[in-house]
Amino acid sequence: VTDFETATLLRIFLDEGERWEHRPLFEAIVEELRRNGFAGATVLKGIEGFGASGAVRSARTFDYSASLPILIEVAESEERVHAILPHLREMMSGGLITLERVRIRLIRKANPS
Amino acid sequence: VTDFETATLLRIFLDEGERWEHRPLFEAIVEELRRNGFAGATVLKGIEGFGASGAVRSARTFDYSASLPILIEVAESEERVHAILPHLREMMSGGLITLERVRIRLIRKANPS
Amino acid sequence: VTDFETATLLRIFLDEGERWEHRPLFEAIVEELRRNGFAGATVLKGIEGFGASGAVRSARTFDYSASLPILIEVAESEERVHAILPHLREMMSGGLITLERVRIRLIRKANPS
Repeated sequence: VTDFETATLLRIFLDEGERWEHRPLFEAIVEELRRNGFAGATVLKGIEGFGASGAVRSARTFDYSASLPILIEVAESEERVHAILPHLREMMSGGLITLERVRIRLIRKANPS
Repeated sequence: VTDFETATLLRIFLDEGERWEHRPLFEAIVEELRRNGFAGATVLKGIEGFGASGAVRSARTFDYSASLPILIEVAESEERVHAILPHLREMMSGGLITLERVRIRLIRKANPS
Repeated sequence: VTDFETATLLRIFLDEGERWEHRPLFEAIVEELRRNGFAGATVLKGIEGFGASGAVRSARTFDYSASLPILIEVAESEERVHAILPHLREMMSGGLITLERVRIRLIRKANPS
């Protein structure tokens, strides 16, 4: 695959209920990525999960206060990812960050069909 | 882990609103993968995200015309993935494709419980 | 990135409709991971997909009996992942397990904001 580039896949696992400056943390992180020139980000919401507390949270329990797991996925240059990591860690009070090397290909067409 | 095989994890990030031949692009891609003999595919829908335009799209805004991010996940042989890449790129007008090497184990039991 | 550790990303692709001991398999797996001391797990539910049968299942079809794809994501030590693999395979009658090496950083703050 010749025209793929090497990039870093940054994945952030956190709780829907975590907050940063009076707003949901995941929204604040997306805004931060956008302001720092990242090309894109995708936020996925889980239906069940658990973190360090060990308590299983689930959409099944009809406990509408349950904080479901959130996963933010970002593929970017290693430099940009490393530059934002300290700030992400400052914003997060719990959760998990994973890094992987991936090959990526951005698709940008002049005249989308 | 002895009986795992090496495979390629293909991940396709695109917009829910993108179309191909009068249908949603993500549906057309799933159909294409199926017709080309891929063993499986999983389509995830995000609750928020942004792409190259920089505009944040979100399920929170109650803007029902918002095009949410879609992530298609496929684990397959490198040959099969490489063979379909040119066609995927022809179908996509925006978005991102990532490739990773992973170890996989397909589970197929004769008598599922 | 100095204080990241190497870990194994375990991803389990299965059907929402699969069962284990009279309950949904994905719930049983999450419970099993929790009981075995895993630090966390995230369960994502797809909107469409297909497996070995080749039949496309979709949330679009308004077929409420459709079994949608489930993806369970876990980042853990290689030892813990390898120890649980035989039991996961015993529980699953279909689906796919993938393993990847990733760098991870757990965030645990004494006084979450």
